[in-house]
Amino acid sequence: MSRDQNGDLRGTSQETLRPVSAGLEEIIHRPIPVLDHGFIRVVDYMGDDAAVVQAARVSYGRGTKQVNEDRGLIRYLMRHSHTTPFEMAEIKLHVKLPIFVARQWIRHRTASVNEYSARYSVLDKEFYIPDVRDLAAQSASNKQGRDDHTVDNPDWILTLLREDAERSYLNYRRLLNQNEQGEIMDSTRTGLARELARMNLSLNFYTQWYWKTNLHNLLNFLRLRADQHAQYEIRAYAEKLLHVTKEWVPLTFEAFQEYKLGAVTLSASALEVVKLMLAGQIVNQAKSGLSQREWSELMSDLGQKV
Amino acid sequence: MSRDQNGDLRGTSQETLRPVSAGLEEIIHRPIPVLDHGFIRVVDYMGDDAAVVQAARVSYGRGTKQVNEDRGLIRYLMRHSHTTPFEMAEIKLHVKLPIFVARQWIRHRTASVNEYSARYSVLDKEFYIPDVRDLAAQSASNKQGRDDHTVDNPDWILTLLREDAERSYLNYRRLLNQNEQGEIMDSTRTGLARELARMNLSLNFYTQWYWKTNLHNLLNFLRLRADQHAQYEIRAYAEKLLHVTKEWVPLTFEAFQEYKLGAVTLSASALEVVKLMLAGQIVNQAKSGLSQREWSELMSDLGQKV
Amino acid sequence: MSRDQNGDLRGTSQETLRPVSAGLEEIIHRPIPVLDHGFIRVVDYMGDDAAVVQAARVSYGRGTKQVNEDRGLIRYLMRHSHTTPFEMAEIKLHVKLPIFVARQWIRHRTASVNEYSARYSVLDKEFYIPDVRDLAAQSASNKQGRDDHTVDNPDWILTLLREDAERSYLNYRRLLNQNEQGEIMDSTRTGLARELARMNLSLNFYTQWYWKTNLHNLLNFLRLRADQHAQYEIRAYAEKLLHVTKEWVPLTFEAFQEYKLGAVTLSASALEVVKLMLAGQIVNQAKSGLSQREWSELMSDLGQKV
Amino acid sequence: MSRDQNGDLRGTSQETLRPVSAGLEEIIHRPIPVLDHGFIRVVDYMGDDAAVVQAARVSYGRGTKQVNEDRGLIRYLMRHSHTTPFEMAEIKLHVKLPIFVARQWIRHRTASVNEYSARYSVLDKEFYIPDVRDLAAQSASNKQGRDDHTVDNPDWILTLLREDAERSYLNYRRLLNQNEQGEIMDSTRTGLARELARMNLSLNFYTQWYWKTNLHNLLNFLRLRADQHAQYEIRAYAEKLLHVTKEWVPLTFEAFQEYKLGAVTLSASALEVVKLMLAGQIVNQAKSGLSQREWSELMSDLGQKV
Repeated sequence: MSRDQNGDLRGTSQETLRPVSAGLEEIIHRPIPVLDHGFIRVVDYMGDDAAVVQAARVSYGRGTKQVNEDRGLIRYLMRHSHTTPFEMAEIKLHVKLPIFVARQWIRHRTASVNEYSARYSVLDKEFYIPDVRDLAAQSASNKQGRDDHTVDNPDWILTLLREDAERSYLNYRRLLNQNEQGEIMDSTRTGLARELARMNLSLNFYTQWYWKTNLHNLLNFLRLRADQHAQYEIRAYAEKLLHVTKEWVPLTFEAFQEYKLGAVTLSASALEVVKLMLAGQIVNQAKSGLSQREWSELMSDLGQKV
Repeated sequence: MSRDQNGDLRGTSQETLRPVSAGLEEIIHRPIPVLDHGFIRVVDYMGDDAAVVQAARVSYGRGTKQVNEDRGLIRYLMRHSHTTPFEMAEIKLHVKLPIFVARQWIRHRTASVNEYSARYSVLDKEFYIPDVRDLAAQSASNKQGRDDHTVDNPDWILTLLREDAERSYLNYRRLLNQNEQGEIMDSTRTGLARELARMNLSLNFYTQWYWKTNLHNLLNFLRLRADQHAQYEIRAYAEKLLHVTKEWVPLTFEAFQEYKLGAVTLSASALEVVKLMLAGQIVNQAKSGLSQREWSELMSDLGQKV
Repeated sequence: MSRDQNGDLRGTSQETLRPVSAGLEEIIHRPIPVLDHGFIRVVDYMGDDAAVVQAARVSYGRGTKQVNEDRGLIRYLMRHSHTTPFEMAEIKLHVKLPIFVARQWIRHRTASVNEYSARYSVLDKEFYIPDVRDLAAQSASNKQGRDDHTVDNPDWILTLLREDAERSYLNYRRLLNQNEQGEIMDSTRTGLARELARMNLSLNFYTQWYWKTNLHNLLNFLRLRADQHAQYEIRAYAEKLLHVTKEWVPLTFEAFQEYKLGAVTLSASALEVVKLMLAGQIVNQAKSGLSQREWSELMSDLGQKV
Repeated sequence: MSRDQNGDLRGTSQETLRPVSAGLEEIIHRPIPVLDHGFIRVVDYMGDDAAVVQAARVSYGRGTKQVNEDRGLIRYLMRHSHTTPFEMAEIKLHVKLPIFVARQWIRHRTASVNEYSARYSVLDKEFYIPDVRDLAAQSASNKQGRDDHTVDNPDWILTLLREDAERSYLNYRRLLNQNEQGEIMDSTRTGLARELARMNLSLNFYTQWYWKTNLHNLLNFLRLRADQHAQYEIRAYAEKLLHVTKEWVPLTFEAFQEYKLGAVTLSASALEVVKLMLAGQIVNQAKSGLSQREWSELMSDLGQKV
């Protein structure tokens, strides 16, 4: 779709006086596969760990001689949620993803997006069919999520999904007065407008976009979408992005794991429980002021048996 | 879905010391139908024309005795694109709309949104089927849009769209192990997780959301989406919103029509053309420096025959 | 400056079909004093706790019969940082504040602002002079903050600040060719442009603005600015706003205290320390993997002696 | 303040697979002087004209073979205010500027900022004193602006501004218990906290920050701040940035001049006037429906004598 989609651009490096991320230069322009037909591809970036440090230092100026080590400063910023220096690095991705994933992804508003438009162009015949092991049943306890076991009629489900998507696409093309190769079917008439015909496609069809955001907002995206409560399909993208982020800004990534991904927040009441426990007292849910669910989560976080 | 969805709330007015828009109080909580199953419903609002004036006056302070008439001040602000005072009024809508329209709408990022989640709940069997007169053919000249004539096989198209949507929904329910009434089909097994089953639905199914934005961003939305280049289906919503806006902030709406909706922008080159024409000279496209398309649009804007 | 600045508007209540916050109706339009000349005044608002619940319910739809109590739902949203429903309530304030406080405040970008403009109008002779008990010395340990004891020459400092501000203002007026009553001094000439003369004023002079934001961003503002690390002068405003927020959305405020203001976050390493301590082991800083400062803060949070 | 403030970084170019802007590589890291002590310095950037084209092409996909020339596509995007592709390029600047200019600049919210903090560090003795030719009198007709002639007592004004700033700074240092070289004055006591002492400085003192924004928002900034209605001092920065933008994205800059900077917008009523004039009719203000000011501006735009 654009000049850099073939790998040729990787062959033509140029000189720059800008900061360079060795990790990203290794993977830039190369598609990283996700799901059955999707990918993430780093298209451009600006700054690295040093950009975060540089921005923090302008704020702290000459008064910060003591915090003179980059790693320590980045950890300090992350720990205290001083987020503005992390806005100083930027990344741009080319992403191919199912429409129902795109609908979740787009809710992150502080990013720039240019999406492939089915008003202008005809969509390819590419739709997402889950792997058998991801065909989870509805969870009975969690209204939002999947159960941890799969359905017991996977073949029937996969066949149904595939047949409906095939028919959906065939009829999309027929509405456009085209066969699946894009050839005109009936030369005596024009097809339905593309912007209308697309409504016949189902939400598992793939779309693609350029998505550009800063490091702070990328970390927010990852914190929410690499979480176990996120739907598996968007989490698959987030997990690949965790790897990209680690290559790009290793110090920031390490601090992110320590202070965000691996951290737990204790509510005011939970903190009181922990203090009592450390003082050797026996606390139970009834006395704790916590709901049953909060109590269970706290005990789980603390590695206690319930 | 919520307490105010039945019309009862309209019966219980309360006292407030806040500004009140007489026009919106007339229509608040009442669904305004759009397309075949959609609607817009004003749920809440803050401020009115006076809020715009009040904010502008704090900026201009005592120095603005001369601009002492609200209508004149609002026109002045609109004319000079002094946009911040228009951010001081806010509106919240409940909207029901097809998913492919929602995908366009959500690109307006400076708004707050809570959408009905098909991870939590089962979607209703409601899908958009265009009216026969809106079944436009693809435009040959405009890659993006519709032709101004309709297709010549509308019945075939409508039947195809309806049958595919019916099957899509039936199979969505079957994936959930439910019939269309929501009754469990096979009590020996659980259905596929809702977050997965929904991918079988097509883009013409209806979703709904609460959407809250300020007056400035609402006007931006209207300028782009009530435009003739916008897809008809989202324009149908924008046109209803034009009416809502007029009821809410009549002075702002009048100024918006004069300085935005009804205005034309002349490029530097087009301005030169107009100056030459006013000086009595004959100008043609070749000499104008304008492209053929720009020339045609300029002549059309100026009411000149080409 | 505007019609509602006198208290008259409080006398003229009107009917509305919108949600009404009883707590805010009590205080709307009434200036709440802050510092020596500043104030906060609620000018308008939209929604309340019920607006948060309503927006959450549209997302969760029919699937949420179980979470059927407003307080529980709001606590759930706050605990899991599901922030979008809190964007559905909005507040507008009129604030009078020193310029150096305004410079910190404006860094919260997701808000609408109209500030009094010294290009259009002449500023009043009002400047901030700290109370004696707030004249803190520079902290030796904390590069950013104040020591907890006051300076030992407060009278000299207060006199210096007052005299410089007085002179600064007198000369501002003289640059404008005015005396302090605004009368022209020399009728044979015009003064310097207001936009230039203002540069002679010092950062403790008062400005004022309308500031409008949603509940989610207000809570972010409060979390950062009501914190003990915030500069005292902006904290004085934040503390008044805590009270306003409590009156407006009591359930949200209670949840905010429990899950944000009163909460502590344990890093991945700190969590390991707590687990070891709960298992009865003796842990010290050297073995903990925490820096000396992190260790001290953790012990302090846990109510342990260091 | 940071490693790249000395010019050394310019000596160490590196290889990259990213797009490179030849124009910006020439000027990156080099301070461009503005006003008496200020500067703008490009610190980093991402993308160029090709990034805009690439993003537009993903939207238009295979349907846009006809718009196959970059310059034409960029002009098309600018003309129709298709703004999202211009968000795909990003620039980061180091700027030194007077505080009263920073207060205007910061109102552009969609940017990332890290400012030098006078809570952490002591400000340098650098303040803005206008050039004699910029000492404009207050305009009598325009409440907001300057007259086009200068004051008739410039020496008195410059002396007053300079003396007040000198005293302001001397006393700032005395509050800190320092002389102007930063040496402690009275070793028996600590000074006032920096965060308080700074309030004695006037608004013409210089601050500095890192400022990062995308091309779309940069053009918005330039449209407003390079305008003749903007205050001269911020316009001085905007004009240097126009030059930087031209070096960075020459095709975008050319389109920006044609369709934004050099364009005029005709209101609905003004368009009617132009149509009548083109039809050979005599129109005057009274009949036009335009206010006297709008009429004058229209005639001026059209090169007509009034």
